[in-house]
Amino acid sequence: MIQPWKKKGEKVDYDCGFFQVTVKNSASPVTGKEHPFYVLNTWDWVNVIAITDDGKIPMVNQYRHGSEAFSLEIPGGAVDRNDGHALEGAKRELLEETGYEAREWVELGKIRPNPAILNNTCHIYLAKGAKKVADLDLDEAEELEVQLHTLAEIEAMIRQGQLTHALVIAAFQLYALHVKK
Amino acid sequence: MIQPWKKKGEKVDYDCGFFQVTVKNSASPVTGKEHPFYVLNTWDWVNVIAITDDGKIPMVNQYRHGSEAFSLEIPGGAVDRNDGHALEGAKRELLEETGYEAREWVELGKIRPNPAILNNTCHIYLAKGAKKVADLDLDEAEELEVQLHTLAEIEAMIRQGQLTHALVIAAFQLYALHVKK
Repeated sequence: MIQPWKKKGEKVDYDCGFFQVTVKNSASPVTGKEHPFYVLNTWDWVNVIAITDDGKIPMVNQYRHGSEAFSLEIPGGAVDRNDGHALEGAKRELLEETGYEAREWVELGKIRPNPAILNNTCHIYLAKGAKKVADLDLDEAEELEVQLHTLAEIEAMIRQGQLTHALVIAAFQLYALHVKK
Repeated sequence: MIQPWKKKGEKVDYDCGFFQVTVKNSASPVTGKEHPFYVLNTWDWVNVIAITDDGKIPMVNQYRHGSEAFSLEIPGGAVDRNDGHALEGAKRELLEETGYEAREWVELGKIRPNPAILNNTCHIYLAKGAKKVADLDLDEAEELEVQLHTLAEIEAMIRQGQLTHALVIAAFQLYALHVKK
């Protein structure tokens, strides 16, 4: 049976205001030897699959600076982890990024964006009975385009490599397993 | 129609040897105003869903220092992006982390772990006719346990929040869409 590593110390090695890099010195349970592990300390995230009563899912298309390309995604964003108000964050992001509200909210799951190098959780919600109620309300560095797609269109775009964001693809896997249940 | 941002400059702001943080100054296509964007510059990754002829999938359970918890995952690792030998990397990681080889390899997709803050791609492979041929061959700071699971068991673990790694869940969504085709 494998054992957890033992953290001997950690310190913030870098801070850009959006995330910190923490270096952790942890000892192997097998050899006792210490190794450094570099981890990003950041907010929790929320992502929302909202569905209208006629089966349309509002998606946002936006330019992303990691990939330097457009990315088609479900609405979402960062939430305060200590605060824990993931559902409120999900409602806010859906409204701000798409102008939609929903009748019923279901938590599809809490996933780890990357447990090796990120310390955060992404909360995935299903928002049923979604309806457009407002215009977009975006931050200054946020420019995006809302598109409505059916689930079949989204599955085709994932297959064809047009929708590539791992967290979005994972959200649709959680949704598929939720529906299959 | 939304337009791409225009990168005016970038510099490496931090380098821990495993990844770099690059700050990009990019101008909005709408306002012309520049904003800083902090992005992790790292290797591409590979992940492998290997399946034996009797429907078992080798998984690896290992302690992760971002989440400070154990994480059940499919085998995978980092590959040189310039090199582009993702398939060779996938074969190597499957063999080293599980001792398995496979008869037939299929690329299920190339996904973006996080296009907002990571510049890399994760290559997802399906390895059919997997068979154990060797013992594990691990790096010094790598300690893991191999477990064999059926797809039904994996889906149940995703549903119940026991398998939470987003890239792994995304890989099973690609697999489900591949099988459904």
